[in-house]
Amino acid sequence: MAGGFQAPRVQAGMMATLDFWFDFASTYSYPAMMRIAPLAAEAGVAVLYRPFLLGPIFKAQGWDTSPFNVYEAKGRYMWRDLERLCADLALPFRRPDPFPQNSLLAARVALIGLGDRWGEAFCRAAFRTEFAEGRRIDDTAMIGAVLTDLKLDPAAVLDAAQTDNNKQHLRQQTEEAQRLGIFGAPTFVASDGELFWGNDRLERALQWARDGR
Amino acid sequence: MAGGFQAPRVQAGMMATLDFWFDFASTYSYPAMMRIAPLAAEAGVAVLYRPFLLGPIFKAQGWDTSPFNVYEAKGRYMWRDLERLCADLALPFRRPDPFPQNSLLAARVALIGLGDRWGEAFCRAAFRTEFAEGRRIDDTAMIGAVLTDLKLDPAAVLDAAQTDNNKQHLRQQTEEAQRLGIFGAPTFVASDGELFWGNDRLERALQWARDGR
Repeated sequence: MAGGFQAPRVQAGMMATLDFWFDFASTYSYPAMMRIAPLAAEAGVAVLYRPFLLGPIFKAQGWDTSPFNVYEAKGRYMWRDLERLCADLALPFRRPDPFPQNSLLAARVALIGLGDRWGEAFCRAAFRTEFAEGRRIDDTAMIGAVLTDLKLDPAAVLDAAQTDNNKQHLRQQTEEAQRLGIFGAPTFVASDGELFWGNDRLERALQWARDGR
Repeated sequence: MAGGFQAPRVQAGMMATLDFWFDFASTYSYPAMMRIAPLAAEAGVAVLYRPFLLGPIFKAQGWDTSPFNVYEAKGRYMWRDLERLCADLALPFRRPDPFPQNSLLAARVALIGLGDRWGEAFCRAAFRTEFAEGRRIDDTAMIGAVLTDLKLDPAAVLDAAQTDNNKQHLRQQTEEAQRLGIFGAPTFVASDGELFWGNDRLERALQWARDGR
């Protein structure tokens, strides 16, 4: 097939996409979440928001908490690096306690919102609550307050989030993340399967999604 | 002392410095080694080359090999990411086998060279041998060939590298790295102790070394 026809990576008229995999407990997912929408718009790439849980993936690697807690020197560095990074980006930053936060409820609620029109706004608000205000995201009162701010009915959303269907949806997302070889967050996956790990790779991932290389 | 005199971080007339900590076995130390000299010259920062051994530091974290071998998905990703990164930088790349290479001999030889005028050139040549040509750096014949290319007398240098004094020097470097909180490579440390981990942080570290923030 030398010299044969090569299909373009993105069909004419179709917008390039990038899957954005994140866990609400993940520290570097915070700057990624705050940066991705304008950068993707500029690159002409549509973002698919994919919340998942790192817990089962870490467990498979032998950790029962964040590796930043398991490895002390690395953890100490991460907090300083994140603080520096947020300062450079003019993002408010406050370390949440305890760390990591239990992100199960936020992830379930996000899935409901991403099936509606308020998913992105909820994701940003939840990350702000956790990493700009240093508040917990594991209780229904706090998530309810975030939903109320978004002019939503907290009780109705929380009910929808806790259905068996939605719980199963989140489990499937996490299983898909594992199948894709995801081992941390944030991770960006282009439509051809190319995988980029870390907030530092966001720009490169958008370029790949747009250009196919 | 409100409004009092604030001493500049770098004394007038003194060049800002950045310590560059690396292990010859470390994959991301390769692009960092190839990038640092021109970037530092541009920033007006003098680089102190600090070879050390990650082995004892990894051992203290419970690993008896590279974490990229311990954690399979992360390792698979790292090789792809490094390949992509080298392509972006137009750096030749070939995966060395076995990985990680035993970097003890190269580190000892580098210390001799860094006390003389050929240290930097040796460091770059050793990283090229390992990651551009995919060859071993743990045997005296190969390191000897690198030294011969640099117009040095391999036998004399290898003798100096294996003295008790020089072995002790390398042990002290590794102990200092541990004291500084270094847990991986490459790591950059500014004169005020600010620490930056990873090839991705090289530009930011140089900026910090120059501006003190």
